[in-house]
Amino acid sequence: MTGLDDRRARMLLGRWSEPGDAALVGRVREQGAVAVVQELIAGASPLAHATSLSVRMPAGSIAAAADRERCAGEAAGARYVVPGDREWPTQLEDLGDAAPLGLWVAGAGDLRLLALRSVAVVGARAATGYGEGIARVLAADLADAGWATVSGGAYGIDAAAHRGALVAEGATVCILAGGVDVPYPRAHDELLARIRAHGALVSEAPLGGAAMRQRFLTRNRLIAALTRGTVVVEAALRSGSRTTAAAALRLSRIVMAFPGPVTSPQSQGCHALLRAPGVELVTSSAEVLAHLGHGTVTGLRAEGLEPREARVLDAVPVRRPAPVSSIARTAGLVIDEVQAALGILEAEGLVSRGEGGWARARGR
Amino acid sequence: MTGLDDRRARMLLGRWSEPGDAALVGRVREQGAVAVVQELIAGASPLAHATSLSVRMPAGSIAAAADRERCAGEAAGARYVVPGDREWPTQLEDLGDAAPLGLWVAGAGDLRLLALRSVAVVGARAATGYGEGIARVLAADLADAGWATVSGGAYGIDAAAHRGALVAEGATVCILAGGVDVPYPRAHDELLARIRAHGALVSEAPLGGAAMRQRFLTRNRLIAALTRGTVVVEAALRSGSRTTAAAALRLSRIVMAFPGPVTSPQSQGCHALLRAPGVELVTSSAEVLAHLGHGTVTGLRAEGLEPREARVLDAVPVRRPAPVSSIARTAGLVIDEVQAALGILEAEGLVSRGEGGWARARGR
Repeated sequence: MTGLDDRRARMLLGRWSEPGDAALVGRVREQGAVAVVQELIAGASPLAHATSLSVRMPAGSIAAAADRERCAGEAAGARYVVPGDREWPTQLEDLGDAAPLGLWVAGAGDLRLLALRSVAVVGARAATGYGEGIARVLAADLADAGWATVSGGAYGIDAAAHRGALVAEGATVCILAGGVDVPYPRAHDELLARIRAHGALVSEAPLGGAAMRQRFLTRNRLIAALTRGTVVVEAALRSGSRTTAAAALRLSRIVMAFPGPVTSPQSQGCHALLRAPGVELVTSSAEVLAHLGHGTVTGLRAEGLEPREARVLDAVPVRRPAPVSSIARTAGLVIDEVQAALGILEAEGLVSRGEGGWARARGR
Repeated sequence: MTGLDDRRARMLLGRWSEPGDAALVGRVREQGAVAVVQELIAGASPLAHATSLSVRMPAGSIAAAADRERCAGEAAGARYVVPGDREWPTQLEDLGDAAPLGLWVAGAGDLRLLALRSVAVVGARAATGYGEGIARVLAADLADAGWATVSGGAYGIDAAAHRGALVAEGATVCILAGGVDVPYPRAHDELLARIRAHGALVSEAPLGGAAMRQRFLTRNRLIAALTRGTVVVEAALRSGSRTTAAAALRLSRIVMAFPGPVTSPQSQGCHALLRAPGVELVTSSAEVLAHLGHGTVTGLRAEGLEPREARVLDAVPVRRPAPVSSIARTAGLVIDEVQAALGILEAEGLVSRGEGGWARARGR
């Protein structure tokens, strides 16, 4: 089957399946994506009954179908990121068989770097001014501290969080339930364009895919898995945000919730969450940052830095900036390697460039 | 020393000492109150240095001093309740050496019966409308469910709680930092008179005693110890209510707090409390009642009923009312004993009288 590599096979499987199909992902992990496509085409897959997957396509059309996905991606300015890619956020593997096959990403930011130091800020669509105010200020404060805000692009808390990050000139990531080329809700057309320019739009749904009800729930596990912690700002008793929080708890992420007036239905879901073991009550951005382990670089390294980047970070002075040549000497690496690593560390907000060279970012 | 019995000795010691003098109470538990008075008068007490206590009084004046206390009590319409009295709330013994020597009580209610099924509702003096609304509704709902509201008579949450109980025609108890005959704050003159008429004013401070700063803090332990649980409705970060909550936790009472807007300083103390292990987040009267174990009579019996009352309660049918004669037969007691016990059980809200006789109170 000419031209079908792992990436293209995953694209196709993503097109044919519904997000969160654990049987499919499990099979891909065992057999490889190419073999799973071949099985399906041959009508010999054990998945045909176990999952929603059904493929009616002659084997000869597979290459063309994969090409169509690639072209659609190019047209949408989106890239398909798969496990093994430099941009793949490896923390998604914590999801096991619920991990996505791959992610469509559209935007200026590098998803792995954005996600490395990111927090989910989620909540009610029908938010109150109280909740929107908290979300906006929190995302701006997170941005100031070098954290990206991840949310779902919805009305209410989600939009307030994205906007707060953008106003503070921080990075923000929107994980969509439909395709990254399908602005949803439509009224957020412009907001989504700004997120794309200053961060990334992300989805496991195929290009052009509709934002269907079930996809919002499966999408929420990605918000939880991609980030280091989830903050629920406002949530009604029945709220999708609670599924995000539950997924985050299952993944041992930090889960935080803001209390609110007991007279407000939009805080009832938060209060219910706050009774669950492991959910932290937070009342300010500073408390959220404290829970995230603000100022500890150690955790970050273990989570996402490559060995060479960690070595360069160790060589960057905490206060007085040093030139690249000096850092290279300390790290025992050549200048080119150090330059590349510094660029990544800068993107992660770990180092900053000033007069006289590089130093650790302030407050870190 | 003619005429000095345990009650009169405790009255005098209460006059001479500051509330919460553990060394004094410990000595009284060891030696008896009369002996401790004699020691002090003789200048032979080991307490003279250990406590704030200093007595300059010829032995011959003791009886007259005790008489003055008794007369002052009569003039104020107050009684001095001591351990061993039928009205003594035995749960105060949980305080150990921090238990009061005795309590001045003024009011229509029987303190032991009131306290048996009581909840402390406390909070900020500088309360908001949000907090006062919660306190008022909570105390009224507690009253409807047969619970007495205990508080400190202060501005803000305390007053709202007392008023809520009174409006619902429920019982309420005010524990004062000064004497029961010293209305404090003065503006609550009328409120305190109503509490006295529908419950009780209580203090361990001597009659005429001023409401001094230190006495508010020692008073708070009584609010915690007397009640089955403490609800903090609003509290600033530095708030006396937090000392009440801490005392209640130490005494293994149920401690609850209402969350509020994170933008409100009056909820900051509640949010801080809610991070402490063992403090329950509550958002409604129903949740408070659920924590108090609404509907379980078992706990009540163990806590406060006399064996004969428990035996009578067991004999009272849950649904269909039975006449006293039938209850007496079932309990194996004579009619007079059963009548007396039923009166107490009725006061405690455990049984109610209807056509055809007595049955368990509804909802119990």
